[in-house]
Amino acid sequence: MTKRIFNFNAGPAALPLEVLSEIQTEFLDFKGSGMSITEVSHRSSWFDEVINDAVLRVKRLLNLGEGHEVLFLQGGASLQFSMVPMNLLPDDQVADYVNTGSWSVKAIREAQVLGKKVRVAASSEDRDFNYIPKNVDFHADAAYVHITSNNTIRGTQWKSFPNTGDVPLISDMSSDIMGRTLDVAPFGLIYAGAQKNLGPSGVTLVIIRRDMLERVPDTLPTMLKYTTFAAKNSMFNTPPCFAIYALGLVLKWLDEKVGGISRIEEINQQKAGLLYSYLDESDFYRGTAEEEDRSTMNVTFRLTNESLEETFIAEALANGLGGLKGHRSVGGCRASIYNATTLEAVQALVSFMADFERRYG
Amino acid sequence: MTKRIFNFNAGPAALPLEVLSEIQTEFLDFKGSGMSITEVSHRSSWFDEVINDAVLRVKRLLNLGEGHEVLFLQGGASLQFSMVPMNLLPDDQVADYVNTGSWSVKAIREAQVLGKKVRVAASSEDRDFNYIPKNVDFHADAAYVHITSNNTIRGTQWKSFPNTGDVPLISDMSSDIMGRTLDVAPFGLIYAGAQKNLGPSGVTLVIIRRDMLERVPDTLPTMLKYTTFAAKNSMFNTPPCFAIYALGLVLKWLDEKVGGISRIEEINQQKAGLLYSYLDESDFYRGTAEEEDRSTMNVTFRLTNESLEETFIAEALANGLGGLKGHRSVGGCRASIYNATTLEAVQALVSFMADFERRYG
Repeated sequence: MTKRIFNFNAGPAALPLEVLSEIQTEFLDFKGSGMSITEVSHRSSWFDEVINDAVLRVKRLLNLGEGHEVLFLQGGASLQFSMVPMNLLPDDQVADYVNTGSWSVKAIREAQVLGKKVRVAASSEDRDFNYIPKNVDFHADAAYVHITSNNTIRGTQWKSFPNTGDVPLISDMSSDIMGRTLDVAPFGLIYAGAQKNLGPSGVTLVIIRRDMLERVPDTLPTMLKYTTFAAKNSMFNTPPCFAIYALGLVLKWLDEKVGGISRIEEINQQKAGLLYSYLDESDFYRGTAEEEDRSTMNVTFRLTNESLEETFIAEALANGLGGLKGHRSVGGCRASIYNATTLEAVQALVSFMADFERRYG
Repeated sequence: MTKRIFNFNAGPAALPLEVLSEIQTEFLDFKGSGMSITEVSHRSSWFDEVINDAVLRVKRLLNLGEGHEVLFLQGGASLQFSMVPMNLLPDDQVADYVNTGSWSVKAIREAQVLGKKVRVAASSEDRDFNYIPKNVDFHADAAYVHITSNNTIRGTQWKSFPNTGDVPLISDMSSDIMGRTLDVAPFGLIYAGAQKNLGPSGVTLVIIRRDMLERVPDTLPTMLKYTTFAAKNSMFNTPPCFAIYALGLVLKWLDEKVGGISRIEEINQQKAGLLYSYLDESDFYRGTAEEEDRSTMNVTFRLTNESLEETFIAEALANGLGGLKGHRSVGGCRASIYNATTLEAVQALVSFMADFERRYG
């Protein structure tokens, strides 16, 4: 019998059951090709349809016009920490970074490893990264402004994006892309590891504004240039076919079954609202992020009696609620409630939390 | 009804049906976790077992001792063309490369893009890359010697590896790794995109001798240093979990079902022998590679009447034999007969070829 849990993993994370079932059903014979999707050539019309549909879904869902390229890369957001400054930050210019936690720190460090000039324009390190800096003075001469739109570990999220004038915004959106409506106009580049809202791990979505491609130095290694991927529809070499295929199905689900991003945004707010309301009312649990900045994707919390957290996480798992352990760097608890996590799952979690509170409170 | 063809794709390529079925069966509930393998955290004991088993299988199958690290990267062999010189070729030293076709050319070019010093120690370009250079004079001061062990496009293969003394050999083995017995001792590094003999696309196997890690400059970007992957069991960041999982199952199949590399080598020789014998006997078809250097993995051939090739490929597909088109850069025909391609598939191909010859010869 197929057992399924409520999955609150931070990434790799829950995927829509409809998508998983579709992959399973056609796994030995993709669209009558007589091959598994894992056996189909990336130079075939079968795979062309897969990748073109995935690109089209990204464009449709985010209302991208001709001014943006949709690319599929490998190496995760971690490789983007290097590729962004390598490609878009000339040695004689400076980029502004906002530090809102571990992933921002890594992005800053990788730019510095390359010998690039980086300014930390703002940071929330002073209060354990539990908020998003406001009213930041960015520099008009910055090559770009880099932010982390949602902080998976600390459970904070930029609710609105800073106005940086003519300076392009660049954002790591790994953990909230496609989870809320988004005006892409101010963004020169957006990148996102797929394994949270988009699909399985192994593919990184990059959305780049066409004018940014002009910054890419010719002298970079072929596989580290955005222009290589833009020129070849992400198929200069063999792409991660299965991951792109699965990502395409997840976006099709979001587009056709859910009804697009504004609809999933409502559902995500409903899910997060349910959980945060419960946390706010309880003395047994407490959220760790500032109320105005807390994430609709990663709900970080502690038990007032922290010594009960291990029991809480273990009992939750025994009750079919998995992945509630906080990131190893901060401890505590975290419920990641990405697009594919159902309202039913969040209801089950709140119900378990109430029961646990009754028994241990 | 599930339709399956005989798949002669050059990569992504055929995978063992037993492996595909196992993936399909457990796709919604991996080992009783209640999650798909695509939803399991890479920081869980479930995935630890997956990656540790994959590493162990590589070590067992190739008889690797403690002196070698097994790493799983992303970006394909194409990223390795850059990472190898970036990590292992100091600016004041020179590396020897042997040019045996398109993939060697790309490896050489990427080293040059980095401003590294490269010597082309030998080349088979003079005869359209239809052979492997013999008795090459390598330089004793070379930082390494780079070869392409099997040339997917031209259908040639190094039958024995050159003796380079103390100079470490480095090889792109994307298209023949695990297809024949191998003494890893002379190799400082071996790399292979998975999508031919190992699994689906999206993961690159790197086997590195431990002493080579000492060459890696500290100043490289984190995600482009072999030391990062060696220090973190390939999980500095989220790895391509599904691709590693599938690769592990393919190696388990090779190890337990087939009986290891010496057994698959016999089968591969039988498959290639059958096909080459037929080509040698026929005046209607002709192999393109020199007899002594021809590959057991990629059998490249032409029809004497080249204008019939398109019909040949189309009729083959209509008869359930797919992927026989030669690489777009050289044309003609190619049957890739990697580990997962069965003897039955090759017999079916030869039988079709004989029939086609009777009808059009």
